[in-house]
Amino acid sequence: MARISKKRQQATEKLLEALGTRKVKLEGDAKYMASFDSLKLAFAYDALVIARSEKDVGATLQLANEFRVPVTTRGAGTSLTGSAAPAKGGWVLDVSNLNRIKIEKTKSMAIVGPGAVVGQIQAAAEELGLFYPPDPSSLKYSTIGGNIACNAGGMRCAKYGVTRDFVLALEGFLPTGEKVSWGGEYKKFATGYNIRDLWIGSEGTLGVVTKAVLRLLPKPEKKWTILVAFDSDLKALQAVQKLLGDGHNPSILEFLDSNSVYCAEEIAGVKLFKGLSLKPLLLVEFDGNAAQLRADKKKAIEWAKATGLAYREARTEKETEVLWSARRACSPAMFSMGDSKINEDIVVPLESQAKFARFLKQMQKKWKINAPTFGHAADGNFHVNIMYTRSDKEECKRAKGAVADLMKKVCELGGTISGEHGIGLAKTPFMTVARNEAEIGAMKAIKKALDPKGILNPGKIFEPYEVWDKALEKVKLPWDKKPIAKKES
Amino acid sequence: MARISKKRQQATEKLLEALGTRKVKLEGDAKYMASFDSLKLAFAYDALVIARSEKDVGATLQLANEFRVPVTTRGAGTSLTGSAAPAKGGWVLDVSNLNRIKIEKTKSMAIVGPGAVVGQIQAAAEELGLFYPPDPSSLKYSTIGGNIACNAGGMRCAKYGVTRDFVLALEGFLPTGEKVSWGGEYKKFATGYNIRDLWIGSEGTLGVVTKAVLRLLPKPEKKWTILVAFDSDLKALQAVQKLLGDGHNPSILEFLDSNSVYCAEEIAGVKLFKGLSLKPLLLVEFDGNAAQLRADKKKAIEWAKATGLAYREARTEKETEVLWSARRACSPAMFSMGDSKINEDIVVPLESQAKFARFLKQMQKKWKINAPTFGHAADGNFHVNIMYTRSDKEECKRAKGAVADLMKKVCELGGTISGEHGIGLAKTPFMTVARNEAEIGAMKAIKKALDPKGILNPGKIFEPYEVWDKALEKVKLPWDKKPIAKKES
Repeated sequence: MARISKKRQQATEKLLEALGTRKVKLEGDAKYMASFDSLKLAFAYDALVIARSEKDVGATLQLANEFRVPVTTRGAGTSLTGSAAPAKGGWVLDVSNLNRIKIEKTKSMAIVGPGAVVGQIQAAAEELGLFYPPDPSSLKYSTIGGNIACNAGGMRCAKYGVTRDFVLALEGFLPTGEKVSWGGEYKKFATGYNIRDLWIGSEGTLGVVTKAVLRLLPKPEKKWTILVAFDSDLKALQAVQKLLGDGHNPSILEFLDSNSVYCAEEIAGVKLFKGLSLKPLLLVEFDGNAAQLRADKKKAIEWAKATGLAYREARTEKETEVLWSARRACSPAMFSMGDSKINEDIVVPLESQAKFARFLKQMQKKWKINAPTFGHAADGNFHVNIMYTRSDKEECKRAKGAVADLMKKVCELGGTISGEHGIGLAKTPFMTVARNEAEIGAMKAIKKALDPKGILNPGKIFEPYEVWDKALEKVKLPWDKKPIAKKES
Repeated sequence: MARISKKRQQATEKLLEALGTRKVKLEGDAKYMASFDSLKLAFAYDALVIARSEKDVGATLQLANEFRVPVTTRGAGTSLTGSAAPAKGGWVLDVSNLNRIKIEKTKSMAIVGPGAVVGQIQAAAEELGLFYPPDPSSLKYSTIGGNIACNAGGMRCAKYGVTRDFVLALEGFLPTGEKVSWGGEYKKFATGYNIRDLWIGSEGTLGVVTKAVLRLLPKPEKKWTILVAFDSDLKALQAVQKLLGDGHNPSILEFLDSNSVYCAEEIAGVKLFKGLSLKPLLLVEFDGNAAQLRADKKKAIEWAKATGLAYREARTEKETEVLWSARRACSPAMFSMGDSKINEDIVVPLESQAKFARFLKQMQKKWKINAPTFGHAADGNFHVNIMYTRSDKEECKRAKGAVADLMKKVCELGGTISGEHGIGLAKTPFMTVARNEAEIGAMKAIKKALDPKGILNPGKIFEPYEVWDKALEKVKLPWDKKPIAKKES
């Protein structure tokens, strides 16, 4: 152990020598804030590297290889799974300053650094009449590098696809510190193995991105929104099937189960339908040109009348905001059910959604736990929010039991354990539930082939990690929503 | 050598024992026809396996691993690169009978076997109002397995994306014979490494697909087509930039250079503009709903008037066919310039297209060779058709020189050597032109990690192979177009 420490110390000295104290921090606030991500599980580590150029990234990786130092790359650190936390110590490589955004209008492309904030990429594209569809809820803070690392999704994915579907090329470094690029400023290649898409979603374990080329679409002309209330969770999910089965292609199709509606109505005081109480909702948005929207609107209203209890449509921007208020309020209001939340972004195939709704009820009853659920119904990617109080050991045990049941069930239903957050540390115990031995074996063989020294983001995805035993940092992050407490009546 | 042969013989005996003579062919026409693909470079091999089930695939791979027998998977064999030819002998695994097609309307998905013909998948989807966009010119014959193997493209890719963009999940076998599945009947996953996309485009060297889940879109309501003639290749390519820069999003944007137009007009006798001769063309299609098309049409006609010499639009299906006649006729007419064609599907970024047009002229002059060029201008994926006479050794040398110059140039221009055909055998000498040492090293490391015995499709992609020294089979394949000779006037 002592020998390793000495070697590590020597490595960090070399790093300081190469990059200087402006870029290498051995202590201080910035270093502390990079010891965890949005999971708030902190780890001790040696040095924070604040990269200012691609060269800094290369230099860091070359030294890390020479001295076998673990390197964990990070952007904003919005990950909910611990994937950006330095689980095995070593160095944290912060690339958030590599945040160039250049929009190429004729080519419908964005050339961006890994630290570019996703919302800022979208805004820059929109200024030129273009559109970057992926919209994770973290988009005001999260960087494209992190979005690529976990193949981030969002609400518009069922119609438009996930981050992967918009990445044309990646440039960066192999774990060995060698410079590579996968793809270019073009839309097609069939030139050897596609390591671009292997990098995407690999949670920073197979390479470090220093540049990405993104595909952009023409910006849709208009949007139209409708909110529909249903008699039961099951009825709402059946209506999803009806809508999609009839050939509709909504840009957003968000489901709020009755528990989520309870949080919005009873805790946050957002009530959208008079005379109806605790009724699950579907929030549906269509986008396109005016003629397309007219047709969509007509058919959607027919569908709402046939399947729902009541509906409201938005004619103005202000009305649209009102329709979104339940969706926006339910999440912070959930903290009235417990000071801690596990947001499991599981996926279930469309035909299993009714079975899944029944399971959710049973699960909450069995484990005496609240798990308000909402999410992207068109692609079956639901956020099951398991609420608990971290200091209540007995409740923690129940929450843990509920998570295990949930993971097993979604796989039984033909779904999977993560749709857009990734595995990180938090979901490592469930990799063997989701994947067979041969599949995990192939993944590990690839990791070993590309990162023979095990430098990049070690401890993630494959090594089972128990988050429940650890204390979490008590710190407010910029994207943490202020909990909503029950309004006095 | 004798020892290997004996072991091989024993392996083939075991294979026969396991699968029977109905599925294993040691001689005959079927075996001969599987000794080459559309490149027509034939190789001797031991046995053809005609798989009738997934189980047959597994059994073949397990035996191949036990006895270290090379296995080359094939569908229809439309590959132009030799990627489906058994370059190292062994066994050919024909999966064209695994051709199930099941359309899931509500989920907008197609569940297909690897042997399903792409055109038949499209037709089945269209019957239910759905749409599978990738449209390689081989689509009446080529199978989805082959399309996945080379990440096939086509004309509609600039708007809709390539095969990869429509593959949600793959099921099949690792080279080791272990059963795996990557993804499921859902649209999102972030559950460990994405080996689905690593398989796509890996030309059958990393796995064998036995089932694919494809994403489908709503079928566009209508199409509208316009054909525009330009004063020069350069002017036509500049007009492409103008069209895309103004925010148009055509579903098809095909370029025919003046040499291709020569083939259509002078050889095939297709003349579409009175008073204009040998003028390069852009064939532009828009799709969408009626209102969208009205807007597109108005703007496209303005663009044609501003940039072109003349235009024709199609009001009816019949008129559309007329506009397509030059594009369809130019390819078979090229054989008047030589009995052999190398169709190089290179990619150049949009901003380099003008430079590329100048290079093409110089290249043809320097090597005294005809290389009529057409292709998908919106994504810079051009087909440079180098025409030569195979029996003319001196002309072969010049054609070979032209190919080498072309490959070097497209990489210099920021493009790449293949957009949709893949590397196979034919492009192996140029892998080091397109990719750096670290990139190729990473690919080879992955191959070794997943296929430690080197069973699957050995000799492809990475090992330089010289096709010019070999004789090609003189056989007519179902998709070979009948050459068009000059019409008597």
